[in-house]
Amino acid sequence: MVNFQDVLQASETLRNHIVRTPVVRAVGLEPYFDGAEIYLKLENFQRTGSFKFRGAANKILNLTPEEMKNGVIAASSGNHGQAVAYAAHQLGVKATIVMPENAPKIKVERARSFGAQVILCGFTGDDREERAFQLVRETGGYFVHSHADPYVIAGQGTVALEVLQDLPDLDELVTPLGAGGLICGTVIAANGMSQKTHVTAVEPQGVPRMTESFKAGHPVCVEMGPTLADGLRVGRAEQINFDVLKAYPPEIVLHGDEHILEMMRIMLLDQKVVAEPSSTIALAAALDRKIDTRPGRKVCFVISGGNVDASTLRQLLA
Amino acid sequence: MVNFQDVLQASETLRNHIVRTPVVRAVGLEPYFDGAEIYLKLENFQRTGSFKFRGAANKILNLTPEEMKNGVIAASSGNHGQAVAYAAHQLGVKATIVMPENAPKIKVERARSFGAQVILCGFTGDDREERAFQLVRETGGYFVHSHADPYVIAGQGTVALEVLQDLPDLDELVTPLGAGGLICGTVIAANGMSQKTHVTAVEPQGVPRMTESFKAGHPVCVEMGPTLADGLRVGRAEQINFDVLKAYPPEIVLHGDEHILEMMRIMLLDQKVVAEPSSTIALAAALDRKIDTRPGRKVCFVISGGNVDASTLRQLLA
Repeated sequence: MVNFQDVLQASETLRNHIVRTPVVRAVGLEPYFDGAEIYLKLENFQRTGSFKFRGAANKILNLTPEEMKNGVIAASSGNHGQAVAYAAHQLGVKATIVMPENAPKIKVERARSFGAQVILCGFTGDDREERAFQLVRETGGYFVHSHADPYVIAGQGTVALEVLQDLPDLDELVTPLGAGGLICGTVIAANGMSQKTHVTAVEPQGVPRMTESFKAGHPVCVEMGPTLADGLRVGRAEQINFDVLKAYPPEIVLHGDEHILEMMRIMLLDQKVVAEPSSTIALAAALDRKIDTRPGRKVCFVISGGNVDASTLRQLLA
Repeated sequence: MVNFQDVLQASETLRNHIVRTPVVRAVGLEPYFDGAEIYLKLENFQRTGSFKFRGAANKILNLTPEEMKNGVIAASSGNHGQAVAYAAHQLGVKATIVMPENAPKIKVERARSFGAQVILCGFTGDDREERAFQLVRETGGYFVHSHADPYVIAGQGTVALEVLQDLPDLDELVTPLGAGGLICGTVIAANGMSQKTHVTAVEPQGVPRMTESFKAGHPVCVEMGPTLADGLRVGRAEQINFDVLKAYPPEIVLHGDEHILEMMRIMLLDQKVVAEPSSTIALAAALDRKIDTRPGRKVCFVISGGNVDASTLRQLLA
């Protein structure tokens, strides 16, 4: 599986490649909660605007020359694709990113600006993965998975490692829960670093793959319901992510779309930070009193990314 | 005057009152410059959304019981008024803020939400100061100046102190230059901390009071020309600020309105940060190649504040 040593190793490997993002006391948000000290880990300041760069870079840095010689391939509509494109670019590896036909132009252009080849295919995650696997067979390229990979998980674990280095007496660390790369790294790091910090993951009510997997006792695939947290729209739980979460279970909280846009707006106007809906879902759950923010506690939220386009921001401010 | 010991003392005094704001590597901005490592000191994350809180809090914390017994009074259309209102609130001191009659409703409401009395008077800085001095005579309240005060200057100096603690090998530290509180604190701290870091202040071409004061050899009052950097619209240079800058002269760069809004937009979309025009004027000057951002250099910009209202942000994104 993946263990704390792997996260420490990833931290060493990534040292000169990533931004050590700040943990900041979020005094602009505190009036909205119950008196706790609120902190943010600002992974929206990471290269390519999200934590995904950590996992992608750690994976590519650990490929053998043989594995990387035909380039890397990723299937992604979002941050993982940008992260793989940029990490490959930095490391001098060829990258091909399979994106949906309706991908925002800016994401296509940005990946191309990093020198990646972009292939537009279908509209679903399955369409993209199928095309990516076909490319692997045709070109011998190496497929970089966005979450079901030990090096990717170890890379994402460096987020929580840094948080707990900066705030050793943290009471609660809250992350969004999508496919599970971030939360898997988080629970491994938290378990290795601290006996005290409670880890909570906020999963969208519309796509509750991990909640349902735990009910079933094995990884399941759920129907894709609605959620504003587009970065968390993954229906299928994978074995490795399920196994890590079973070994170090976080508290999993389900949350719908309530307050997600409101918290994006509050982040912008009161905390001066652009955060994605996939990040503000955890703040939204806290605003709904699903997270304990009473006085005397220190609670840190991972702001996983900040890639929001101008028109979405404009609507938010209307 | 004010010296490095005063800044160190302010840092001690303010320790439990301010946010220690992060210095972050701004990888989202670097593609726009010439290869230097770009850093930001994010004072938009400070209490009340700007560095002004440091000076206001340091001043009020140093008042005698006699001085503070009738409350404090400030004249301000912007961040200084919010800072005094909130600092006074935190310290249990009564505050009266004189604002212009056309002050944005949100600023009036926010100051009132901190328990301050808000008095609306006239439209110019002179109108406000006159009314404030009248209040001082009537009520015995203590007038907190926004920049011509040793404790305020020492408080603002803690910004640069923290930057240079975090980045001891910094090549250049760039701040906006308005009335001079921030830059005075900056040059004192930089002189005390380092022989190496070059300090540059960017003054708006439309209100060049310090540039003109240095030409004249004494503090002068200039006509108020146009500038988008509303936080830097102060026509008169004061003696103490002039004297500090004469003792430790920074490089002063003049810059007009070119690129100010563009840099606000780039900050928002590429660096995920809300910054005021008074902050982005320094980045705008750098985009105009008035600051050396060539490879091998480390350049840090002080983002002095982030108080931008929703409608301004919306226009920016149009």
